[in-house]
Amino acid sequence: MYPIYTINCHPVSRKGYLRRGRKGNCAVTMKIDFDCIPCFIRQALDAVRFATPDPDIHASVLQKVLIAAGQMDLQQAPPMVGQIIHRLVRELSGNNDPYKSVKTESNQYALQLYPSLRKQVEKSANSMETAVRLAIAGNIIDFGVSGAISRNTIDETILNSLSETYYGNMDFFLEKAALADRILYIGDNAGEIVFDRLLVEQLSGHSITYAVRGGPVLNDATIADAEESGMTHMVEVIDNGSDAPGTVLADSSDVFLRAVENADLIIAKGQGNYETLSDIDKPIAFLLRVKCPVIARHIGCETGVPMVRTANL
Amino acid sequence: MYPIYTINCHPVSRKGYLRRGRKGNCAVTMKIDFDCIPCFIRQALDAVRFATPDPDIHASVLQKVLIAAGQMDLQQAPPMVGQIIHRLVRELSGNNDPYKSVKTESNQYALQLYPSLRKQVEKSANSMETAVRLAIAGNIIDFGVSGAISRNTIDETILNSLSETYYGNMDFFLEKAALADRILYIGDNAGEIVFDRLLVEQLSGHSITYAVRGGPVLNDATIADAEESGMTHMVEVIDNGSDAPGTVLADSSDVFLRAVENADLIIAKGQGNYETLSDIDKPIAFLLRVKCPVIARHIGCETGVPMVRTANL
Repeated sequence: MYPIYTINCHPVSRKGYLRRGRKGNCAVTMKIDFDCIPCFIRQALDAVRFATPDPDIHASVLQKVLIAAGQMDLQQAPPMVGQIIHRLVRELSGNNDPYKSVKTESNQYALQLYPSLRKQVEKSANSMETAVRLAIAGNIIDFGVSGAISRNTIDETILNSLSETYYGNMDFFLEKAALADRILYIGDNAGEIVFDRLLVEQLSGHSITYAVRGGPVLNDATIADAEESGMTHMVEVIDNGSDAPGTVLADSSDVFLRAVENADLIIAKGQGNYETLSDIDKPIAFLLRVKCPVIARHIGCETGVPMVRTANL
Repeated sequence: MYPIYTINCHPVSRKGYLRRGRKGNCAVTMKIDFDCIPCFIRQALDAVRFATPDPDIHASVLQKVLIAAGQMDLQQAPPMVGQIIHRLVRELSGNNDPYKSVKTESNQYALQLYPSLRKQVEKSANSMETAVRLAIAGNIIDFGVSGAISRNTIDETILNSLSETYYGNMDFFLEKAALADRILYIGDNAGEIVFDRLLVEQLSGHSITYAVRGGPVLNDATIADAEESGMTHMVEVIDNGSDAPGTVLADSSDVFLRAVENADLIIAKGQGNYETLSDIDKPIAFLLRVKCPVIARHIGCETGVPMVRTANL
């Protein structure tokens, strides 16, 4: 009776990146948890409120998203469901980029902070580790987790990041990153991309490609944010050809897939990239703040912690 | 194409209780806020997890609830939407009372605490106020707000309740309650009903009727809980004939409506009763802990605070 909403995937198994969790030809690594569903409905509501102040459109979009969510294949990875839901919100609200002003504001605030953050990295006894800590601190700017991120929250996260305990294997990552030749750095959010510049600078001796999303979704960074943040002046920036809030290889462009193929280290920022790439058979380091209980359970940690998680290094 | 889910209401306007916010003949006092919708989906997921451990049923119920929520009239009061959603969960899961064991456990834990709480009331300089504070503390046992309430949370709430600042008009309520003749005390949750006994004891010189829900919904108290808690041995207990998680007059029995008619003071516990009775034209005191941001905005307070809110007294 109802259509089942799924993303049309084209084969990526030929690339041999995925070890487990394949569903047909789609890159499913972390299956959706039922707890994600109320969160997606809240995200859709946040998104349509960013898209328009019209309460009639809020009601109509909310109702259509609820029905669509009720017809979805719940075996997909959360960012694939997010991709469908946010496409629907954009289409139904008539706003192709609801988070546009939020993204610009985040970039501008981060650029204000950037000179002092850069000094902190430079004066630090371990500049590389400090840059990693600050790049992860920037991952707090995530409008998928909450519809509002205050400047106070960002400031506090930065301050804490310099001394708080990091989970995972920071030292191992620092050691391996120093040896990498071709690095693919997959960004996450606008604003955060400015923080990523600090780490990109510390990796300046390496060949780096920085990847952003192929189209607007949530406050995820796109080419426009790479330009606003200054990233395009530093390294080669590509987009992945996809509007999923993560890295769905089956939905990615050939240019992006080649970059994955060629990298001897992938640095993947944030939850969406973790959810979609946690099972990839490539040397990878996930740098993120763990903000949701579903991901915390998958990793085996508390929510609210900063994390360096490596695989295949 | 889709049915619009609404509760069939029979006229109550003849009673003349409602001043504003009528929708047809239905007792709509607080309209649903879009923020309630993700919360209802989370509640449905909690409920079906209490109903059965079968993940296939979780998925199927979740999908059907999403579709039903997408077809609902969003002009209804939150407990009317809750009534529809929880009916659906019970029907689809085949479990007529998913919170049965949670309710019994709450009653039993509260009965363990009861002797020491009673002593605290008796030795207090203002026994009536202490009983009100403890009755409101009991309102923390609300599985509509969260799928898990720990004993630690209950213990801490009790401890804090004796000294924390109360919002609203406690003194005015105490003064007016002393003058009331016929009191209708509308309970909220299982477990909490034991705490209500402390206040009912302090009001022993008055004619009191205690009302519970007419059927299982969430962890709301029903006749079974009135029996388990010992309330039936203290005062007349009636049910309201409705399985809404609040007091929907249009869905209530004649016996309950007569009790409303005859009362010269209604004491209404908890959020669901506030959402459905906030506009009633009867002398009423709402005793609750404000646990959700939508109600906090309606009242004009922060979340997490204890509240005595009176009207028409």
